[in-house]
Amino acid sequence: MKPSPHMERALVEAEAAEARGEVPIGAVLVDASGTVVAADGNRVIEQHDPTAHAEMLVLRAAAANFGSERLSHLDLYVTLEPCAMCAAALALARVRRVVYGASDPKGGGVDHGARIFQQPTTHHRPEVVSGVGEGRAAELLRTFFQARR
Amino acid sequence: MKPSPHMERALVEAEAAEARGEVPIGAVLVDASGTVVAADGNRVIEQHDPTAHAEMLVLRAAAANFGSERLSHLDLYVTLEPCAMCAAALALARVRRVVYGASDPKGGGVDHGARIFQQPTTHHRPEVVSGVGEGRAAELLRTFFQARR
Repeated sequence: MKPSPHMERALVEAEAAEARGEVPIGAVLVDASGTVVAADGNRVIEQHDPTAHAEMLVLRAAAANFGSERLSHLDLYVTLEPCAMCAAALALARVRRVVYGASDPKGGGVDHGARIFQQPTTHHRPEVVSGVGEGRAAELLRTFFQARR
Repeated sequence: MKPSPHMERALVEAEAAEARGEVPIGAVLVDASGTVVAADGNRVIEQHDPTAHAEMLVLRAAAANFGSERLSHLDLYVTLEPCAMCAAALALARVRRVVYGASDPKGGGVDHGARIFQQPTTHHRPEVVSGVGEGRAAELLRTFFQARR
């Protein structure tokens, strides 16, 4: 898998989240020209908000920015496989493509668990690309959880 | 099914959402003493936010209010079966009980579609009660979608 500058940016957001004491996950939303329109990391602890995952924060920021709850012109890059909440939010927003790093058999909702985009009732099926930058993303998470054990 | 004052309050929030031009769905979070700690309706259009479902708004408000992303002492009342995004958020927040009105075979994620709480990977399984005040909740939604056709 060739390196992706957008995933690099998501990894920088994941590292910034870790520095804030959050689970190190980062996400960016990118438009068709390759411009980053939103970038953030987890802020669950900082904001006392169970929904403040990186993916949700960039979705909300981009939707507010464009004045529309539909983001079908955007691609998401995220360091870890999105959970079911985030995957369902990405479907609601009609995000075009979801590119993720490490897979998450325990908490993922794209290729594990609820497999949101494979449900007949999903509003939208983004294109999914996995394994981009997964080595660094997985290493960040491993180090984080080891330090907390 | 006996009337529930908390579902009545959720229905009032659903009607207020309809008056704002939103899909008429309302939700309240209630503590063990029966006190309403958060109440709101859909604000997807108003806030240009694909995640601004009634359930998400009350979760975020209550978590901010209590300064904690865990809300295991609270029960949710919502007029319609939560979607997969909201159901997964309710599991992340460890909400104790989910009481909903009308069922939603097309968009629901509790007893339809992704069946979030039945996934082996769910973080938490709230107690689920369905069909409370479903007549009025379903009628509100039917009228709303008929008027827009």
